[in-house]
Amino acid sequence: MRVRDLDETALLARIFPLLPVGEGVDVGPGDDAAVVRAADGRFVVTTDVLVEGRHFRREWSGGYDVGYRAAVQNLADVAAMGARATSMVVSLVMPADLPVQWVTDLARGLADASGPATVVGGDLSGGDAVVVSVTVHGDLAGRAPVLRSGARPGDVVAHAGVLGASAAGFDLLTSGAATPDDGAPGAATSRTPYVAAYLRPEAPLEAGPAAALAGATAMLDVSDGLLRDAGRLARASGVDVDLAEGALMRDVTALVPAAVEVAVATEDPDGADRARTWVLSGGEDHGLLATFPAEVADRGLPNGFRLVGDVRAPADDAPRVLLNGEVPHVATGWDHFRP
Amino acid sequence: MRVRDLDETALLARIFPLLPVGEGVDVGPGDDAAVVRAADGRFVVTTDVLVEGRHFRREWSGGYDVGYRAAVQNLADVAAMGARATSMVVSLVMPADLPVQWVTDLARGLADASGPATVVGGDLSGGDAVVVSVTVHGDLAGRAPVLRSGARPGDVVAHAGVLGASAAGFDLLTSGAATPDDGAPGAATSRTPYVAAYLRPEAPLEAGPAAALAGATAMLDVSDGLLRDAGRLARASGVDVDLAEGALMRDVTALVPAAVEVAVATEDPDGADRARTWVLSGGEDHGLLATFPAEVADRGLPNGFRLVGDVRAPADDAPRVLLNGEVPHVATGWDHFRP
Repeated sequence: MRVRDLDETALLARIFPLLPVGEGVDVGPGDDAAVVRAADGRFVVTTDVLVEGRHFRREWSGGYDVGYRAAVQNLADVAAMGARATSMVVSLVMPADLPVQWVTDLARGLADASGPATVVGGDLSGGDAVVVSVTVHGDLAGRAPVLRSGARPGDVVAHAGVLGASAAGFDLLTSGAATPDDGAPGAATSRTPYVAAYLRPEAPLEAGPAAALAGATAMLDVSDGLLRDAGRLARASGVDVDLAEGALMRDVTALVPAAVEVAVATEDPDGADRARTWVLSGGEDHGLLATFPAEVADRGLPNGFRLVGDVRAPADDAPRVLLNGEVPHVATGWDHFRP
Repeated sequence: MRVRDLDETALLARIFPLLPVGEGVDVGPGDDAAVVRAADGRFVVTTDVLVEGRHFRREWSGGYDVGYRAAVQNLADVAAMGARATSMVVSLVMPADLPVQWVTDLARGLADASGPATVVGGDLSGGDAVVVSVTVHGDLAGRAPVLRSGARPGDVVAHAGVLGASAAGFDLLTSGAATPDDGAPGAATSRTPYVAAYLRPEAPLEAGPAAALAGATAMLDVSDGLLRDAGRLARASGVDVDLAEGALMRDVTALVPAAVEVAVATEDPDGADRARTWVLSGGEDHGLLATFPAEVADRGLPNGFRLVGDVRAPADDAPRVLLNGEVPHVATGWDHFRP
């Protein structure tokens, strides 16, 4: 059955049962708007859009994958403020020949990725390509939000989550060294971990509030590559962020076999370099980069974080990211916007 | 200059200055997420998407029009809960050859339509067609939300805003009886009022909280046509909603000249019928349909509302909308989703 075979009401009737309504929701989907509780008198909000042919390909990603990823990239932004997600709204543009199963899979992916942050509203429209726009709300539980701008010289830099796994998966697929399985929800997957990391990224969502409680001075979601996002934190805080390449060696080493697979498939013999580039510049892993006062590191970083560098007074009036004290000479990341 | 000539950072640098940050915003755009105040410990949220070629044509609608309309259709949903809008987030998908001016016009349109409800975050992406997804948040100021489900037999039915004007404008454009002007922001317009109503609808936003304060029992935004939306209210409340055609005669009469223009342009001689259909079934006027206890009507309806019918116990187990007591025999409205 295709989307064109149902009207909006009938399609929504298939989607709503897949989306449980959470506890903090006074009015869920179905009225003009939802009403969500915000116990501490504030809410966190962020939005991200996924576009078919730009952020995903339907021959690689099933509906479940796209729903899961659309949720995670927003949930990571909420976590990066030190908040817990409470609710989301979703707008979905889709071609008339899209299978209804793809849409219900998307709803399942959203629900599974989001846990207690339930879907409270949405909008459906026809269009030539699939576009999924998700807005997620979060709760700070009375805490101050952790901004990008709070890093101070003397702080340590720490990272939670994976680095380079999503970029490795993308290159494995692009080079033909790996193929996605059918991506059915709940099915045992034959995907390599890197392909899985690209199609259904896992973000360390609990590490966000944990970092806030531990006294993180700055934090952001690493979505566009470690160097690029660390540079953003550096500029917002007016500091130099010096990353220690040795601290990232474990990630590079783990990725070398995948990089060799890509090198063989593409007949391009730079396996080790590619693994390093994935770690330093690969996007969409949705880990968290945070800074903490040195005494927090002395006591022990929150669960999931490990030291990757330190914060210094800027060497000049251009705060920047450094690698082992030097300006890095690698591609600095991904611009989602350019064609 | 085209969108492809700028990277995301440079494009955002042109957009942000056009979007003032409001008073209730603790953290505005530029971090992973925004933080917005919700003084009464709840927030209202709704989302709507506009798709080029589906909801608008770029040869008719300038960027300002699209931004204005994207904001208004969401603001009307917030008003229909009895709330005042506080903030919004926007995701924008756009082709690389879109003029940068179109994007900055869109930002101006959003800002002008939204007043104090400022843009607190967003996302930009490339894509083949323009897609604008807006999520608006609102504040109930401690009041209960006005749902669709609260109408009771004996209540009166009232409407605020215009009926049929947007549909008239659409048909005037489609038939070639009218042409849009260039739609430049702030420019004196040569558009007929109906073309303006289609391209930049005005919703009676203040009437929403006013209705809530006056004791409205149910309310919704009339976005898909009076009969269709009244039918939704009827079913949600489990009542019959009986609309009095005489009360709508003023709207029909006012639209007859435009209907005649369309009849002449299309050589289809049903001018008066077309005006009636616009009023009863035309979408996207974004007026508010509300029900009030009869004693509220006796004291005087809130500003902007006029009586258009009454609420009755359902005649059978299928609550429905009636017109002068009969099941109406006209097209009942617009399904946004079907191609």
